[in-house]
Parts: sequence; structure tokens; C-alpha cells
Amino acid sequence: MLDFVRPNILRMRGYEPGEQPQEGSVIKLNTNENPYPPSPRVLEALRQAIHGDRLRKYPDPQGRQFRETAARIFDVPPEAILIANGSDDALTIITRALVPENGEVCFPSPSYPLYETLAAIQGAACHILRFTAEGDLPAETVPRRVHLTYIPNPNSPTGTVVPRGRLQGWPTPLVIDEAYADFAEENYLHLPLKNERVIVTRSLSKSYSLAGIRFGFAVACPELTRQLYKVKDSYNCDALSLIAATAAIEDQEHMRQNVARLRATRQRVSVHLRQLGFLVPESHANFVWCVHRAHPARWLYEQLKARGILVRYLRYPETEGLRITIGTDAEMDRLLDELRRIV
Amino acid sequence: MLDFVRPNILRMRGYEPGEQPQEGSVIKLNTNENPYPPSPRVLEALRQAIHGDRLRKYPDPQGRQFRETAARIFDVPPEAILIANGSDDALTIITRALVPENGEVCFPSPSYPLYETLAAIQGAACHILRFTAEGDLPAETVPRRVHLTYIPNPNSPTGTVVPRGRLQGWPTPLVIDEAYADFAEENYLHLPLKNERVIVTRSLSKSYSLAGIRFGFAVACPELTRQLYKVKDSYNCDALSLIAATAAIEDQEHMRQNVARLRATRQRVSVHLRQLGFLVPESHANFVWCVHRAHPARWLYEQLKARGILVRYLRYPETEGLRITIGTDAEMDRLLDELRRIV
Repeated sequence: MLDFVRPNILRMRGYEPGEQPQEGSVIKLNTNENPYPPSPRVLEALRQAIHGDRLRKYPDPQGRQFRETAARIFDVPPEAILIANGSDDALTIITRALVPENGEVCFPSPSYPLYETLAAIQGAACHILRFTAEGDLPAETVPRRVHLTYIPNPNSPTGTVVPRGRLQGWPTPLVIDEAYADFAEENYLHLPLKNERVIVTRSLSKSYSLAGIRFGFAVACPELTRQLYKVKDSYNCDALSLIAATAAIEDQEHMRQNVARLRATRQRVSVHLRQLGFLVPESHANFVWCVHRAHPARWLYEQLKARGILVRYLRYPETEGLRITIGTDAEMDRLLDELRRIV
Repeated sequence: MLDFVRPNILRMRGYEPGEQPQEGSVIKLNTNENPYPPSPRVLEALRQAIHGDRLRKYPDPQGRQFRETAARIFDVPPEAILIANGSDDALTIITRALVPENGEVCFPSPSYPLYETLAAIQGAACHILRFTAEGDLPAETVPRRVHLTYIPNPNSPTGTVVPRGRLQGWPTPLVIDEAYADFAEENYLHLPLKNERVIVTRSLSKSYSLAGIRFGFAVACPELTRQLYKVKDSYNCDALSLIAATAAIEDQEHMRQNVARLRATRQRVSVHLRQLGFLVPESHANFVWCVHRAHPARWLYEQLKARGILVRYLRYPETEGLRITIGTDAEMDRLLDELRRIV
């Protein structure tokens, strides 16, 4: 039965997104959502966009208005920008454009499980890199035959960044997944314009508080972007997402204020978590990676869940731990209170 | 340069969507949009959904609420329903799940150019079927090695349907693209539950007037649907689209009224077009396919465009013609008036 489905698909377990309880009473610190609402300009732009004539018509398949706005704000040419239905869509498009069946991809572990899923769907093999104790990646061990390396920077679940300069001169085509870059001190958004083998992906889900609308983008050299446009679904971004995304990036001030708040909370929470016996690497993202010295991560996850706090339990071949999203100060105080009782 | 991009991608021309002029003065009959607005219940549901807490959180990756509503309305199990970011996304997911690189797909011509694009992206070969004069497809000529056949029914650009019973017992795995089925007399939505090698895709762009929100779905046997969920991006449908789609299918009455209006207009316009010298096959969709006995299609397209009416000029190896979307009665009267002057 189902022998007409590709064997690589039948073999896959499939990516499991974090739990999304649809009721509201739980404190949700498991999927790196921003606890603060998006810019009021986003809500206003959406409200104005909801009329029948907008909805019955196809959106602009090129996303010109977003691209021109993004070009101005991020100082890259509009022709370098790929619009995407979330940065997952950008990663999917890039994989389909660069990685053949029986090809090979490379990514670090522990990291974002989607890279392995994309490789499995494409029918490609995986070369897995281990982070050094300093959070560096051994570029010299990457086989030249690799069609694409994915490096999330900052990384999830660890929140760490690779040392400055590591990503320049990477030995294979490289996508730098900057979903969390707005929470870090530096980024590589302009590197693709100097190196055509580098692509940077961005998400509006985290720093812009727009996980619900699914919007992300990629920056690549214009000729490569043109190739990626061939692979994307023509109308991959809907009319409302394009409007919301454009309004969101236009309000950099709102985004930066939320990011600053979350970074301050992250700093404070990291200190407390360490006092509670957790190993917490310095995070550059909107979450912290916590491995307790005494208690198993799954047990802690279950204890917290029973107390109405949802964090992400993640297990990798080499480690397991809790990835805890930075919420509001009140939410994090609740978390710390409960943890004090548990550990 | 760009030698790291897959050769099948570099070779592709890329699908060209119909022109989407962003200003409003033109009569737009080129992309099969519905001229009537979506259900007021869609607009109301969207208005209520626009608040910060909804937008900052990820949507339900399973789309449970939509699936349960669709299951009730279309009388299929919720486990049989795949949610998709437009039916193009469903077709993409199905292709990636079933068609390996160097595989082979089959589709009719003239038809929806996306099938060839999807084959090119996947690196698969195409076996092309020609419609008989009666609009039938020669199933007996399809090689058994074909991994997937795409049959749009009703077909675009011709608007025709294959004879009853043709799609049962199709010799290869089959996706019936029912983007236009709401405008036809019959459909195959329940066939996948009897035949696991058949998948049906649906779009909310046309009959539900929601091209702007990008939502479609597929019906397949539950075990196959489970495989397709592995291939889709986790969050392929955004929170607002899911809400709009659910509200839209709940208002079947609104959809059916618009469909009835468009079918009446289609009938009337077809008669007039034939009187003007066009060959117009009986259409079962929200457009008509027009080949003029005397005037070349591209010239007619340009004449109409110069008069502020945008129709779709389409050229295939075996034919060329105009695909004219059914608009409002006033729009179609304007079209007929201009055509009377032109031909």
C-alpha cells in the first residue's frame, strides 16, 4: 500500500512543531513567539486591507511593495530579496533550487530540525557538524561535495553565534538562517551581495511578533534570487501577509523596543536560571537553552507543563535540554518561581 | 557563475503568472478571479481576528478547525484533508511526495502550465496527453512508469470536462485539480476515499472569491494525507487564511449564489462570442476559451488591452487563444461592445 509514494517520504518521521494549545490559560514559552504584540501600524494596515475587492484578487506575485520597502530599510537592492511564506518557505525554496536527489547537505547539531526534514524530502544525505565548546563550527571538515550548508546564526536551541568571520569563505554554498538575528549584536545580511554562494534568510515571526501571518524573506545576489523566484509558488505570499509585513518592517522603532525589552529579560533570567543549577549558554536569541546539572530535562518539562507552563523539551543524539522562550517579565517570574519549587 | 544551482532550475523559464496591475481602472478578465466579493462572514471573521495576540502566535499547523468544518460540509473524514497555501501549494506538496528526480509526470495540453513547472523543479520528465476532439484523454497511452498524472477538471484554458467515468481506474497515481469544480455539474471529491491512488485538489480562489488569501486543500485517503503532511511546511497556512477559509466554506449559500450568477453570465457571453466569430467550447468553469476564426489571438489581446480590458493570451504548441474570465454582467457587456468594434 502507498508504494507509489517516494521511499524517502515513507521513511520520514516528519517534523513535529511545538505544541500549539488553542486555549489561552497556559504560559507558552515553547515556540519562540514574541510575548509583545506587533506594531499598531500592522493592525491598522490589516484593518484597512480587509475589503472584498482586495481579497478576491490575487496578490502581487513579485511582492514589489514589500521588496522596495525592505530594500530601503535594509539597504539591499530589491532584486536581491525573495519573498517567502515564512522563512521555512525560503529554506524550502533554497533547498529545492540547490540540492538534487542523492545530493548532500550539511548543518550543525544541535540545531533546527527542519534542515534534516528538508534533506529527507529532497532525498539528500546529511553531513552533520558538531559545535566546538566555544560554539565554533569546523569548516575544514565539510566535504566539498556538499550542495548546501545551513547555519542558523544565532543557533536554535543553543542561542549561540559562531565566531566573527567564520561564515565568510565557507567552503560550500551556504544559507545563514537569521531567524533570530534581530536579537543578536551582528548579522550577515549584506554578505550575499559580496559572495554569491551565500544566502541569508529572515523571519518576521520572532522580532516583529508576526508568527501568525507567516512571512519571511531571503537576501541573495540578484541573479540567484531570480533563480529562486522560479522555484517559489507564484502566489506564495498572500495579500494580507504582504501588507502586514510591509507595515511591520516600516516600524523599526517598535521592533527594536521589543527586542531591547526581551534582551534585558533574557539577561536577567539567564542569571537566575544559572543560580538554580542550570547550565545556560550566553544567548543571542529570544530564548535560552537550559540543561540542569541534576534533573533530567524531560522531567522538568513535565513538571512545568503540569503547572501550566509550556517550554520546549528537545532531545538530540549528543544532548537534551529545555529551550525556554523569553516571555514577558511577569511570565518569566512565574517560571522562575515554579522552578524554585521544582529543583 | 551559479554553477551550484541545479541545472534543471537554471534551464527553466519559470512560470509567468497573469499580469496583476495594481491600479484599479482596468477591467481584469485575465486570472480567473471572481468579480463578486467573498461572503460578508469572511470579512467579519477576519476583522475579529486582527488583534496582536492572534498575530504574534503561530497558527495551528494541523488546521484542525478548518479540517473539521470541511469534513462536515464536504462529507469526508477530517484525516483525509490536507490544508494548503493555495491549491498550487497542494500540487507542489503532492509532486514532492510522489515524483522523484528523473521520474516522469503526465498531464494534458493545453492545460495549466504549473504542472510542467513542477516537473522541471523536481527534475522529472513530462508525458503530454492531447485532448481528443470530444475533450477526452487517451488513458491507454499513458506509460505505467509515470509517477503522477495531473488532470484539471474542468480544464484550463478550455473549460472542458473529461467524459464521466474517465478518471476512475486511471492507470497511474492521479491528482484531479478541481480548482474550477464548483462551476461544473459534477466533481470527484469522494473518489480518493475509494481509490488511494487518487487525490483531489480544491482552491478557494475562484468560487469563494478569495484569491488574495491563498487557501486550498486536498482530499486523499487518510494514510496518504498523513504522508503529505510530512512534506508541507509546518505552518504553510497562516492564522488569517485559516480563519477566512473556514468562514468561507461555512457560507455555501453565498458561494452558490455567485456561482449561479457566473454560470448564467458564462452562458449568455458564450452565445454572443460565437456570434462574433469565436469558437467557444462549452465551458464548465468561470472563464471561456476563445479562438477567433479570422483574427489572431495576440492581436485581439492587444486590441482589448489598449481599450482597458485585460484578458489572458495563451499560446501552446498546438493552439493559441484567449482565456476570458467571466466578470460581472456589466464588465462582459463592455467586453462584447469592444469586441464588436474590433472584429
